[in-house]
Amino acid sequence: MSYTQKKRVTVEIYGQQYAIIGEESEAHIFEVAKYVDMKMREIGRTNPTLDTNRLAVLTAVNVVHEYIKLKEEYKKLKESIEG
Amino acid sequence: MSYTQKKRVTVEIYGQQYAIIGEESEAHIFEVAKYVDMKMREIGRTNPTLDTNRLAVLTAVNVVHEYIKLKEEYKKLKESIEG
Repeated sequence: MSYTQKKRVTVEIYGQQYAIIGEESEAHIFEVAKYVDMKMREIGRTNPTLDTNRLAVLTAVNVVHEYIKLKEEYKKLKESIEG
Repeated sequence: MSYTQKKRVTVEIYGQQYAIIGEESEAHIFEVAKYVDMKMREIGRTNPTLDTNRLAVLTAVNVVHEYIKLKEEYKKLKESIEG
């Protein structure tokens, strides 16, 4: 039986605090929060009229785009190995 | 010289419309929007008191977590090929 302890880590994203609960390391959670904060600021700079709500949704859109692209690359790489 | 045409696609995410401008196919943009919408609804169900703003940020957090995990797996797979 494996035992994993859930941790509660407080992070700051775009000036707001969030309690993240998960089994991941603190370092991973901080890395994730930093990435979201950085992306929000990046998108906010190029779209200064966006409200935070729409900015956050567009940040999610941006990241999902990168995620799906990487997933396709991963699949291709795997297929190239399995031949 | 390559020529890529930017497209403007309107999608609906969590009941709001967004104009997405990019070089990607419409199918890809719709897939991304659907994924974000689905994730927001999923997180909203388990956290019914969250406002949309915080819900969107937590959706981005969730996706970046998956993205970083996949990136690590991709790196490992690549290293295993290159020996």
